[in-house]
Amino acid sequence: MFEARQRVIYGDTDQMGVVYYANYLRYFEHARNELFRAHGSTYRAFEGLGLMLPVVEAVVNYRAPARYDDMLLIGAEISAASRVRLTFVYQVRREGEAAVLCAGHTVHACVTTAGKPARLPEYVVQLVSSRAKGEP
Amino acid sequence: MFEARQRVIYGDTDQMGVVYYANYLRYFEHARNELFRAHGSTYRAFEGLGLMLPVVEAVVNYRAPARYDDMLLIGAEISAASRVRLTFVYQVRREGEAAVLCAGHTVHACVTTAGKPARLPEYVVQLVSSRAKGEP
Amino acid sequence: MFEARQRVIYGDTDQMGVVYYANYLRYFEHARNELFRAHGSTYRAFEGLGLMLPVVEAVVNYRAPARYDDMLLIGAEISAASRVRLTFVYQVRREGEAAVLCAGHTVHACVTTAGKPARLPEYVVQLVSSRAKGEP
Amino acid sequence: MFEARQRVIYGDTDQMGVVYYANYLRYFEHARNELFRAHGSTYRAFEGLGLMLPVVEAVVNYRAPARYDDMLLIGAEISAASRVRLTFVYQVRREGEAAVLCAGHTVHACVTTAGKPARLPEYVVQLVSSRAKGEP
Repeated sequence: MFEARQRVIYGDTDQMGVVYYANYLRYFEHARNELFRAHGSTYRAFEGLGLMLPVVEAVVNYRAPARYDDMLLIGAEISAASRVRLTFVYQVRREGEAAVLCAGHTVHACVTTAGKPARLPEYVVQLVSSRAKGEP
Repeated sequence: MFEARQRVIYGDTDQMGVVYYANYLRYFEHARNELFRAHGSTYRAFEGLGLMLPVVEAVVNYRAPARYDDMLLIGAEISAASRVRLTFVYQVRREGEAAVLCAGHTVHACVTTAGKPARLPEYVVQLVSSRAKGEP
Repeated sequence: MFEARQRVIYGDTDQMGVVYYANYLRYFEHARNELFRAHGSTYRAFEGLGLMLPVVEAVVNYRAPARYDDMLLIGAEISAASRVRLTFVYQVRREGEAAVLCAGHTVHACVTTAGKPARLPEYVVQLVSSRAKGEP
Repeated sequence: MFEARQRVIYGDTDQMGVVYYANYLRYFEHARNELFRAHGSTYRAFEGLGLMLPVVEAVVNYRAPARYDDMLLIGAEISAASRVRLTFVYQVRREGEAAVLCAGHTVHACVTTAGKPARLPEYVVQLVSSRAKGEP
């Protein structure tokens, strides 16, 4: 599973002394961006094709808190893709530890910049099949 | 269903011109806080009892985008409570419109400030039963 | 001085138990938006004219912390306007208290949506002169 | 000048298509944290001494916008330290470009966790003098 890194800042925490629950969705986005980049592309390039991937569903399971100054590893992969939808799954761990602090997934629709449903480009669909075959 | 109000600021939007997906979890929290207040209590008072309600699950379904300067109504209610868990459901609409832009729920564990599982106070459990009976 | 209201949520605080320093700039924006509205206009309408007010300077003085669940009053007024620049000043207080928790100002350039410097519309300039005369 | 790196995510931008003005204060904090780390310490360790550095002033000058997916270099250094105050200065650039997008400074008071003014530890004061001598 691809992993992005992110150091927790004070601004990510709340007065309970842990990362505020909404901020994991920011970490998930960071991991999505870096996952595209790790496959030789970028989400910015994807937008350059006149396409967008607005989120239609987000699910987060919070198991244990992340804290200030933790170096987080945000694992991300594409778990499913239809012609017009894409699902990413995520796992957040603290560097050097096995326990999953937070897991979740997001479902995205492929639409044109005008908001019309669109087919996913072939290279994105192939990210899923390559993953299923254990690459890269 | 109780409704809290929130005006969308620029800082809530992203470059797609819509509210960034993580910010709905902030709106949900705002509605939870105001729901407590509407029942004559506050989450701050709840903490004064040495209790906390960390979120263990959050689910958001995004149906249509909210935009800058929209006045949002964030409906919230407690849909279920066991002795140690509480579930809130939410619906976000634009003021004066019927369409639900975003719906979701959050599940919270009741724990002491030391992190030990704790029973929900009776008055919180009664919020659920009173709601079921159509009050207030 | 016009005052906007904003209730502090958990998501605004950090692990020091106080509002995170960046979030005051969000409160300032909220107050700017409501100041426009209080004068019978909106920043959205301003954008409808093909104009924008990007910030070129922000200064914040933090005197005492705001905390979770505080109802804040964010005073805002336009303190100066040249043909192409606008300055807002702010004061944040807790409702029912005189002490200023946070004060600051922001300076904005008037530009077209293409980024070219533009003259402020006359009605905005008049907000400053009306204020100086003690209206509205 | 020490430089921290930060990739701009969608969640950092606003509907003007640029980084929202409050988020530069988050980038500044990230750079402060990494500056401590680059000197063999951490702000978390500083807190372990029972001390905190709440911000008393923040000033930001916005010269040109940062955009989604930009890799930002956030330069930071301690420009002055008295016995009880510390000033950090910052410069934000896009990787590979010389132009400063955003510059600013923050002034911090040294206080105990109980909020009482406290002397800066000697090792922090020495960060300033070492810097003045061109180390490290």
